[in-house]
Amino acid sequence: MGIIVQKFGGSSVANVERLELVTEHILKEVEKGNKVVVVVSAQGKTTDRLIAEEAEITKNPNRREHDVLVSVGEQITIAKLAMLLTEKKHKAISLTGWQIPIITNSEFSNSRIRYIHNKTIEEYLDAGNIVIVAGFQGVDEIGNITTFGRGGSDTTAVALAASLNAERCDIFTDVDGVYTSDPRIVPTVEKLKSVSYDEMLEMSSMGAKVLHNRCVEIGKKYNVPIYVKSTFERDSIGTLVDDKNLEDLVINGVTKDDYISRITIAGLDNKIGKTCELFQILSKNLINVDVIAQSFGEHINRDIAFTVKMNDLQKTLEVLEENKDLLGAREILHSENLAKVSIIGVGIANKPGVAASMFEALYENNINMHMISTSEIKISVLVNSKDADLAVKAIHKKFFGK
Amino acid sequence: MGIIVQKFGGSSVANVERLELVTEHILKEVEKGNKVVVVVSAQGKTTDRLIAEEAEITKNPNRREHDVLVSVGEQITIAKLAMLLTEKKHKAISLTGWQIPIITNSEFSNSRIRYIHNKTIEEYLDAGNIVIVAGFQGVDEIGNITTFGRGGSDTTAVALAASLNAERCDIFTDVDGVYTSDPRIVPTVEKLKSVSYDEMLEMSSMGAKVLHNRCVEIGKKYNVPIYVKSTFERDSIGTLVDDKNLEDLVINGVTKDDYISRITIAGLDNKIGKTCELFQILSKNLINVDVIAQSFGEHINRDIAFTVKMNDLQKTLEVLEENKDLLGAREILHSENLAKVSIIGVGIANKPGVAASMFEALYENNINMHMISTSEIKISVLVNSKDADLAVKAIHKKFFGK
Repeated sequence: MGIIVQKFGGSSVANVERLELVTEHILKEVEKGNKVVVVVSAQGKTTDRLIAEEAEITKNPNRREHDVLVSVGEQITIAKLAMLLTEKKHKAISLTGWQIPIITNSEFSNSRIRYIHNKTIEEYLDAGNIVIVAGFQGVDEIGNITTFGRGGSDTTAVALAASLNAERCDIFTDVDGVYTSDPRIVPTVEKLKSVSYDEMLEMSSMGAKVLHNRCVEIGKKYNVPIYVKSTFERDSIGTLVDDKNLEDLVINGVTKDDYISRITIAGLDNKIGKTCELFQILSKNLINVDVIAQSFGEHINRDIAFTVKMNDLQKTLEVLEENKDLLGAREILHSENLAKVSIIGVGIANKPGVAASMFEALYENNINMHMISTSEIKISVLVNSKDADLAVKAIHKKFFGK
Repeated sequence: MGIIVQKFGGSSVANVERLELVTEHILKEVEKGNKVVVVVSAQGKTTDRLIAEEAEITKNPNRREHDVLVSVGEQITIAKLAMLLTEKKHKAISLTGWQIPIITNSEFSNSRIRYIHNKTIEEYLDAGNIVIVAGFQGVDEIGNITTFGRGGSDTTAVALAASLNAERCDIFTDVDGVYTSDPRIVPTVEKLKSVSYDEMLEMSSMGAKVLHNRCVEIGKKYNVPIYVKSTFERDSIGTLVDDKNLEDLVINGVTKDDYISRITIAGLDNKIGKTCELFQILSKNLINVDVIAQSFGEHINRDIAFTVKMNDLQKTLEVLEENKDLLGAREILHSENLAKVSIIGVGIANKPGVAASMFEALYENNINMHMISTSEIKISVLVNSKDADLAVKAIHKKFFGK
């Protein structure tokens, strides 16, 4: 039998009762004769609590030391889970990021995995151990503790599955798979049996909070089948993320991303390079731009519009105001309280009627679109926040019939 | 200027205000041009809390995983202290046991230091850093996290001072030095200007809870001057533990060790080896025997008495009962509610009147002695618990005049 990697997030390991549930999922695979590697996050609110304590000391923590601090959360979980398994007479051993080691670059709090040494894990697996790995953390080449940023345990799990050539990676969470939309908005959502990596990437970057984006990228690159399953259901089948079993659905999901602002620069200097300069300035100021489009205004080809998160709006406006002359901008306009509603599906590129159906659903419900952006597998529109839920529902009904 | 090692215990780093105090002590040495290595314990009750959480999972934790769990306490402290120092614009860096590394044997929870790699610390010191080290922890030769047992941060500090050839090691605590007795018993105690390693060893193993025994042993072996100082006094001179500046005091301290039981084995088989067998049996059952003496009874040379902690009494009696026939013992007797009162001083061996003075003090106060034991630098007597405080006071008055 092969190697199975299982990942359990913070709410799945929050207390002893839940750790008991986790051991059931682990032992189910062990009983099948599989070698099991388990990746866990910090328990419940542990990381939040550490960060609150840090805030008492400094508003601007040394980034190296921040990683030393927050990495203890996962270390606590691995020790407890390994103890619980040994208490149940199973061989189990915990490993931190540096003990494996998972070697990363030195960008603290947002480090990237360079490579994983398989030897230690493989030896413990061969000796009959369940190997419990601290998610979210690694070590750089000179021995500093690094972390991957929030949600990074998903990345640990899929990267380990890739490195160990595991049969699959099961991501256990509090929902039992990936849905066609947010069930809080569309009560009639359907669970997807499978979804492609690219669709998952689009969905997770747009509000579907199921999987960490980097883990999907790694899954895609190394072709790791990823199952999204529920910790709280004994026989959750979940959703399979891979590129093998694509269903013939045109679209696989409708998502909403709220708290969006649109900024329009009217009369941007027409010189070559000014558009480039604009986005360089924004990037230098760490402002994340999402959708970019030429706006449909009176000054065709001279206006440019883009969206930023609402909490970046003030800073963006300040930066643009400072550089107004440099950019040769005539006017800087903005709209707040917008939401981005998107449909995602590998079928979109090949079915030209999809966009029309989407717009039709909005039109039938008197919902204004403020901006449109499309890609191979995604169509996004900006609508007023107050219309967003209705938009999601209407589009879902149009494509899924309910 | 040289290297100074400073150690701050759990109550000295319990919260942000106390960490601020700690930075004052650190920066005082930095300002003198010294290179400073700081060893810290877990904050306040952190370790107790982790152990309570562990107890929810198992009463008999896997020892390797126990060390993985409890070692996070110190890791939290080093990150916070290093952050606080960098917040104050000082160069500081935290190091865990494995980052240094401090190599230990593999006896989890009670591991011994094998050697310390100086290179990492020295490089950081040379680059102008204050180096903040997690106390109480190391790593074994195959990369397992190990811990030294309670109070082990003292050991880390003195071992680092020895390895780095530091000028001295300052142990900051909540009292400002070593006293001639417990101030809660004898209000007129005096603070000692200096005390020898051996005296400190005797005192710390007998109730004076100032220094961890193993740290004193290392200090003695490598001749590290150790200062015991108060975290809460800006200019605490403290007590120097070394063998250079012995004052000409006959005795340096009066201590009390409570909750002692005495066990007497009447009519132990007189064959050679039976005494040895007795203590092997006790040791195999992890029972710590303290004072051993031939008792003054009717069966001279055939009775043996020894003391154990009161919470080991029940187990000891059971073990002895099981082995009664093997040992050829006629009867097993015990007394509870005893206390050991001791005087300690390098002068004892050379001044035969010391024991007489001690016994005189007890006699004058009608205090019965149940057992006497002496060494080169120590005389201990067993008294009833209810008489113990009076005994300490009377002896203190006899030797210190108050």
